[in-house]
Amino acid sequence: KRPETNVPSALPVAASSSSPVRDQLYSIAEKKRSILCVAADVQSTKELLGIADAVGPHICVLKLHADIIQDWTTDTSRRLRELADKHSFMLFEDRKFADIGNTVVAQFSAGVHRISSWADIVNAHAIPGPGLIEGLRHACAISGRMIGLLLVAQMSSKGNLIDERYTATCLRMAREAFPFCIGFIAQERLDPTGKLFVMAPGVQLDSKGDQLGQQYNSPQYLLKRKGVDFLIVGRGIYGSEEPAKAAQMYKELSWSVLHG
Amino acid sequence: KRPETNVPSALPVAASSSSPVRDQLYSIAEKKRSILCVAADVQSTKELLGIADAVGPHICVLKLHADIIQDWTTDTSRRLRELADKHSFMLFEDRKFADIGNTVVAQFSAGVHRISSWADIVNAHAIPGPGLIEGLRHACAISGRMIGLLLVAQMSSKGNLIDERYTATCLRMAREAFPFCIGFIAQERLDPTGKLFVMAPGVQLDSKGDQLGQQYNSPQYLLKRKGVDFLIVGRGIYGSEEPAKAAQMYKELSWSVLHG
Repeated sequence: KRPETNVPSALPVAASSSSPVRDQLYSIAEKKRSILCVAADVQSTKELLGIADAVGPHICVLKLHADIIQDWTTDTSRRLRELADKHSFMLFEDRKFADIGNTVVAQFSAGVHRISSWADIVNAHAIPGPGLIEGLRHACAISGRMIGLLLVAQMSSKGNLIDERYTATCLRMAREAFPFCIGFIAQERLDPTGKLFVMAPGVQLDSKGDQLGQQYNSPQYLLKRKGVDFLIVGRGIYGSEEPAKAAQMYKELSWSVLHG
Repeated sequence: KRPETNVPSALPVAASSSSPVRDQLYSIAEKKRSILCVAADVQSTKELLGIADAVGPHICVLKLHADIIQDWTTDTSRRLRELADKHSFMLFEDRKFADIGNTVVAQFSAGVHRISSWADIVNAHAIPGPGLIEGLRHACAISGRMIGLLLVAQMSSKGNLIDERYTATCLRMAREAFPFCIGFIAQERLDPTGKLFVMAPGVQLDSKGDQLGQQYNSPQYLLKRKGVDFLIVGRGIYGSEEPAKAAQMYKELSWSVLHG
């Protein structure tokens, strides 16, 4: 059951939309005054649920990698869904699907993780072509749930292989796949109308990068200069000694950059 | 314990190599007179082990998607390893890693599937850049096992986004990452020296494609005209009423195309 809402005008982009998943996301963001997605890259159910409960009040989206949770069971997803409903945030499985249509149908709906039974948002690389999106849409239909897709149109890692032509193809594919596809993982606004929004990873205040090629940007730069719509903060929050405090800080900072 | 062998001269490519994983693959291929990899895209442990045991005598590699197996446990990988050792074939987890280095370390070694604890071969998209390969190499080192990496340098699905420049970058990255990176998922020979071999998916005798954009080629075309080294057959074998017979047929056909 998702509320039917209009895109709130206080948010940077107020394009008309007929995507229930997108509408729900913008409704949550407006109500909680939060454009913050926290990446909970932890490896146990206990840590995952702990982070989710701690940062829950401050976020619109919790991003996770189910496949790195050592003790994942259907109980993990059930309790995660309960926290998502309690704190009103959406669950984003960062699976980066990247296979042919027939395979992603199974990866999305089957296996130990049964992603389509609990996720609100998933993402994919466009590289296998439109059959991948068709496969994910098909699996979503089978699940009977509303799930939104984000295409990875740009990456934040050093030396990544995405060029402008690749990004432009992502934009075309995403437009054709709306309202199932609702936006991008990217580093800047791609759709001038704003109907397809951008979530930007690689956000951190106090770090330039890691030893494996990740590079970080500040919230100010991504929101003001690059026009992204939502920020994904990972190690800056789940790696903090006080994740709830860190989440609140990032939430308030990013909201004030947009509305202050 | 992998045997130290030379690359057998009867195989199409006899380049010198210092990769133990590559050497083991070529040794198995020569002994079993098989360049066949069977993709076992089934969704239960019982089916997976059943296919592995049935086609085992005819293959050099079994390719799987651990993440579509509904009832996967450490017992699944243990029994799969036993079958691989019994029939002498290698286990190829078709994970198509496609995230930043820090994330793929966890995806490779942690989670329910603990891929680095049982796989002999894994693959990845080059799209996130060299940090991904560094991450996988790091996870492989932690595991203490020898595992070979294949880069997805070409795809067989309709409308895929890989162009010649992307493939050329894969070739460069793979060369730099040898002997950890031992080859490609591709549709034609890419490395003229043959040190980096090619496994080609999308092989089937009696079908032109599916409804989700997959396109098929014949063994003759891929081996003779395109110079690939190993063939991956999926639905043509696991979807057959007699997988063992179908595997034997594909094995003998492809071997005779090269040596007949």
